[in-house]
Amino acid sequence: GILERLDSGEVVIGDGSFLITLEKRGYVKAGLWTSEAVVEHPNAVRQLHMEFLRAGSNVMQTFTFSASEDKMESQWEAVNTAACDLAREVANKGDALVAGGICQTSLYKHHKDEARIKKLFRLQLEVFARKNVDFLIAEYFEHAEEAVWAVEVLKEARKPVAATMCIGPEGDMHGVTPGECAVKLVKAGASIVGVNCRFGPWTSLKTMRLMKEGLWAAGLKAHLMVQPLGFHMPDCGKGGFVDLPEYPFALEPRVATRWDIQKYAREAYNLGIRYIGGCCGFEPYHIRAIAEELAPERGFLPLSSDKHGSWGSGLNTHTKPWIRARARREYWENLLPASGRPFCPSLSKPDA
Amino acid sequence: GILERLDSGEVVIGDGSFLITLEKRGYVKAGLWTSEAVVEHPNAVRQLHMEFLRAGSNVMQTFTFSASEDKMESQWEAVNTAACDLAREVANKGDALVAGGICQTSLYKHHKDEARIKKLFRLQLEVFARKNVDFLIAEYFEHAEEAVWAVEVLKEARKPVAATMCIGPEGDMHGVTPGECAVKLVKAGASIVGVNCRFGPWTSLKTMRLMKEGLWAAGLKAHLMVQPLGFHMPDCGKGGFVDLPEYPFALEPRVATRWDIQKYAREAYNLGIRYIGGCCGFEPYHIRAIAEELAPERGFLPLSSDKHGSWGSGLNTHTKPWIRARARREYWENLLPASGRPFCPSLSKPDA
Amino acid sequence: GILERLDSGEVVIGDGSFLITLEKRGYVKAGLWTSEAVVEHPNAVRQLHMEFLRAGSNVMQTFTFSASEDKMESQWEAVNTAACDLAREVANKGDALVAGGICQTSLYKHHKDEARIKKLFRLQLEVFARKNVDFLIAEYFEHAEEAVWAVEVLKEARKPVAATMCIGPEGDMHGVTPGECAVKLVKAGASIVGVNCRFGPWTSLKTMRLMKEGLWAAGLKAHLMVQPLGFHMPDCGKGGFVDLPEYPFALEPRVATRWDIQKYAREAYNLGIRYIGGCCGFEPYHIRAIAEELAPERGFLPLSSDKHGSWGSGLNTHTKPWIRARARREYWENLLPASGRPFCPSLSKPDA
Amino acid sequence: GILERLDSGEVVIGDGSFLITLEKRGYVKAGLWTSEAVVEHPNAVRQLHMEFLRAGSNVMQTFTFSASEDKMESQWEAVNTAACDLAREVANKGDALVAGGICQTSLYKHHKDEARIKKLFRLQLEVFARKNVDFLIAEYFEHAEEAVWAVEVLKEARKPVAATMCIGPEGDMHGVTPGECAVKLVKAGASIVGVNCRFGPWTSLKTMRLMKEGLWAAGLKAHLMVQPLGFHMPDCGKGGFVDLPEYPFALEPRVATRWDIQKYAREAYNLGIRYIGGCCGFEPYHIRAIAEELAPERGFLPLSSDKHGSWGSGLNTHTKPWIRARARREYWENLLPASGRPFCPSLSKPDA
Repeated sequence: GILERLDSGEVVIGDGSFLITLEKRGYVKAGLWTSEAVVEHPNAVRQLHMEFLRAGSNVMQTFTFSASEDKMESQWEAVNTAACDLAREVANKGDALVAGGICQTSLYKHHKDEARIKKLFRLQLEVFARKNVDFLIAEYFEHAEEAVWAVEVLKEARKPVAATMCIGPEGDMHGVTPGECAVKLVKAGASIVGVNCRFGPWTSLKTMRLMKEGLWAAGLKAHLMVQPLGFHMPDCGKGGFVDLPEYPFALEPRVATRWDIQKYAREAYNLGIRYIGGCCGFEPYHIRAIAEELAPERGFLPLSSDKHGSWGSGLNTHTKPWIRARARREYWENLLPASGRPFCPSLSKPDA
Repeated sequence: GILERLDSGEVVIGDGSFLITLEKRGYVKAGLWTSEAVVEHPNAVRQLHMEFLRAGSNVMQTFTFSASEDKMESQWEAVNTAACDLAREVANKGDALVAGGICQTSLYKHHKDEARIKKLFRLQLEVFARKNVDFLIAEYFEHAEEAVWAVEVLKEARKPVAATMCIGPEGDMHGVTPGECAVKLVKAGASIVGVNCRFGPWTSLKTMRLMKEGLWAAGLKAHLMVQPLGFHMPDCGKGGFVDLPEYPFALEPRVATRWDIQKYAREAYNLGIRYIGGCCGFEPYHIRAIAEELAPERGFLPLSSDKHGSWGSGLNTHTKPWIRARARREYWENLLPASGRPFCPSLSKPDA
Repeated sequence: GILERLDSGEVVIGDGSFLITLEKRGYVKAGLWTSEAVVEHPNAVRQLHMEFLRAGSNVMQTFTFSASEDKMESQWEAVNTAACDLAREVANKGDALVAGGICQTSLYKHHKDEARIKKLFRLQLEVFARKNVDFLIAEYFEHAEEAVWAVEVLKEARKPVAATMCIGPEGDMHGVTPGECAVKLVKAGASIVGVNCRFGPWTSLKTMRLMKEGLWAAGLKAHLMVQPLGFHMPDCGKGGFVDLPEYPFALEPRVATRWDIQKYAREAYNLGIRYIGGCCGFEPYHIRAIAEELAPERGFLPLSSDKHGSWGSGLNTHTKPWIRARARREYWENLLPASGRPFCPSLSKPDA
Repeated sequence: GILERLDSGEVVIGDGSFLITLEKRGYVKAGLWTSEAVVEHPNAVRQLHMEFLRAGSNVMQTFTFSASEDKMESQWEAVNTAACDLAREVANKGDALVAGGICQTSLYKHHKDEARIKKLFRLQLEVFARKNVDFLIAEYFEHAEEAVWAVEVLKEARKPVAATMCIGPEGDMHGVTPGECAVKLVKAGASIVGVNCRFGPWTSLKTMRLMKEGLWAAGLKAHLMVQPLGFHMPDCGKGGFVDLPEYPFALEPRVATRWDIQKYAREAYNLGIRYIGGCCGFEPYHIRAIAEELAPERGFLPLSSDKHGSWGSGLNTHTKPWIRARARREYWENLLPASGRPFCPSLSKPDA
């Protein structure tokens, strides 16, 4: 189980981007951001799960983002069921657990009807329970209150619950600080807390530091989890990447390199986080970068490292000597990659 | 057949990136850049073919890059065979032709043994003939002489031959200009000529203009084809992207947006090119961008446009008004996307 | 007097850069940063005073930076005397006051011998008193304690005292916040408080906001004064611009345009600051930009506006229509000027 | 005389920017770009001459840009006379010659009345002859034909004539190549030919290479002279810097550092150019950088090097060790200075 792993000090590697990645592959519609691909194009979803598994993911999250009844209407049950089956099928091919995932509702902003929102969560949970997922994740919540409701519902299944919010260092949309958010989630029953999405790796680690300090100050203990964007986003405001003018169709220049992600993984590890993954923009090779960076601690490399020379070593047989010279760690660690776009700026101002 | 389509004035959309894309998915080793995935992980290759098909590709190129005997030893035949089967399987699911592809050998640089090199090409050609591909492509040649040899061999199969070189406006490695290259290739029997790889879209179109002028000056006719990198590369030297310090593990900031590719497709079309595709860095959504840009001329949208609102229109129901305001063509056409990397430069100096 | 002007609500425009500007003109040695030019090359100093006067400065600060006995030895008295004469000579040609200026000592870091440091200040003050300057400025202090000592000494002359520290929003080198610094300076007797040097205009305005809030919270009243760098410095750390790798010989790309300074002047005014000038990097045309921006409030333009069309209007007779099109406010307000340096980054990391 | 110096192999250092520099000091009106300051504010002009003299200039060019009768009407004679007196007064204080300068007329674009244009040149020349300048410069011509007319007139005074055009590698506005321009100017009687203004140092050196090759191919000999902009301008089109959107009020981020200018001076010297100076944007410290770079060849440093430690050596007594570490050549040679403007691009597109 997830808690046995984390309790024993093991590093658990999460998976990466589904919505943004499958959008680029042609299976998800931007703006809508729903997961009907699990029924429409299961091969595409299975393939992406496989890539994350090979890259070292220990968790196959069900591709059920926004797959609640309020968003998907009558389709919701088929989608949740199919997503569980796909995740399980792939997880069984390797060393991975299945996590059933729910996220914030569209209702909360309009009214705060706890009963109605909890009922939506419970519907998804029933599928997860029936499909016997290994643990549960409440993710992408921008309000602590709704996240707490989610945790309270997920706890009913008597499985471990992880909860991550899509907030930055400034806290939730009502001004609840990251430290307070973490405390509320743990008190509600989450065993694992953290953040996912909306902010880049470095900003998310800053938020995690605040969560960790908040828990410590409250005398609470919990496992820490981080699944940030795979994009460079130093210019995000409180609302995160959606407010930047490039969202969602011109984020390309911001994509992190594998070397950026190795630095992120090391810093996350040093901060005491043991559930380390990614969200939008995290491609399979980014997950592999986490697994390769932490291979000394974990004692093994992920499967897909059979197709990857550590720190560029695969270049050492190139015919051009200046390309062979790139086959070393110092080279890639210190490279400042150019954008190839001299008419573009380095940073943007958020629209809000 | 390919020539019937092109002769009738139809736009033929090529496919995109296999090596770089499958490297990121975990199935190709950078540095080696070979295509053993067709036998080791056929699902991964099939899936990528499917994505390009859905995105509008009319050609499934066999994933046989560097799959000649000198690079793959005894494995070569199985790889070529499997690649043909995969390409055909997917092509049959849509409106696509299968093209058998060969590329430059590693031998040419060391000696120029025409007989030995032609024999290598012939071995691959025998598989393509047996598998009855629809036409043949000689691609990624940096020397006109070797490209001519390839065309001469491919002609033996009595199928249409396309030939693209990986050169920029400065011409081949021996100083043969793009115009002269085009003339030589057509005289050798190629019905379609152009460039692929190594340079970004705008540089490649400049090279195409020179090829077109060369053919015109020589009184020759041929169809034009372009499959550039999906990266912004204004700082390339004569050797193309491999000489830039970011190659191959830090090219992320240079990835083109879908909107960049729409501009490229339009400019290629205006230049009279009718076989328009991509090479390294061209993800499925980039191919879809070609198909969407040229939908007015072609009369239809590609399959995966069911998951894509034209010019960001999928954002028009977003809850935040400033994100809804992005659901229009002018917005994306004029956006200058930030890199999110204020400590990095815009351009690099090639290593050679 | 200065206080009469400020008390009546008048805007007082300070002068600009002496050290950095005269270094570029060949009269000050970088590293040393002393003002012996007042005796060695009085014409050069007089000319710079004249330029600031023409640009609208209402204050001629004596060029006595670091002109204390510990830095200049026996030369100190001649330098202070000559600096007073030059400032007075030019001030008399227009509507300007003379301010005698002292700055932090090199002694404070080594020991905190209040008596010895105050004695140094008193020596300079005696010259200022003898030369009958109009008011006194204690500037460029990075420690509140030493700044307070300076104010205490300057008060002895029974003239108005202004005090500005070279700190940013993080406060002085001992962690005294900007608000606390302002309170200490006012309590010590300063009638005008603020910041000068070390940080760019926007950062300095942030610091001013904190000073203003600190005074307000303490129930104290004082006039506010700001004289920031004329450079874009968003990447400064606590130590300010000296810690950036470009200091002092590669700051060129950071120089503010006149339009940047107009925005700064407006924002300073809106914040309630009425003594607005500049420090290193503020050339005469930057001071003119303050005077032009605030001309509606002041009711007149500075002398050198006879050589300046407001908002580029001087271009409206150019023969090229696209240059004529630049003769308007919207053009310059919205222009994002390129660096012409695609191989350079946008920001630097401070060395400390 | 100038030719004795150049014939003997001496390096002659030109002066720098008058219009742009005096605009920033408040004495020249942008758009108009005339030199009435010589009569209105002679101290300001004298001071700038002095700064260039101290920086190492061997030539005091009369500040007579656009001071012909068609631009200045009745004022023209007083301006030319005063400009000669100021240049001579300062030249006599050091090792400098006086050069009388004329530039292109505004008439040429409207009609090509050779007689009328030559008459304008002759009027200025009469003042220069009366004031007995040491040699003559025809500068800032964008048409070879008008430049030839200027040289023909200047030759009448039986003094050495230098001629520089404001063209880039693409040649003059009628398509005359740089090589052809140089040949025409030498044939017309110029002893020294080259380029000034409109393009940055590197582009101007490219143009000089073409001029040199043109002369060589024609079997002609002449001294070479270069006086480029002190700005980074890689994005200039054929029309040079006036077509860039930042001209003339937002060029700040493009200003060259002293280290850039040292590289330029070395490259100019290596190309065989022996009259090396600057135009718009060249401040006194840029001229000093030429003199310091070529001090080994010339055998002496300029006067104002008494206020400048070579390669930053003046920093070696700074209290902060990381600033002391900047007191060396490698540091400044390799520094890539940041713009401090992350919201701005690196390059602009010319308006024409």
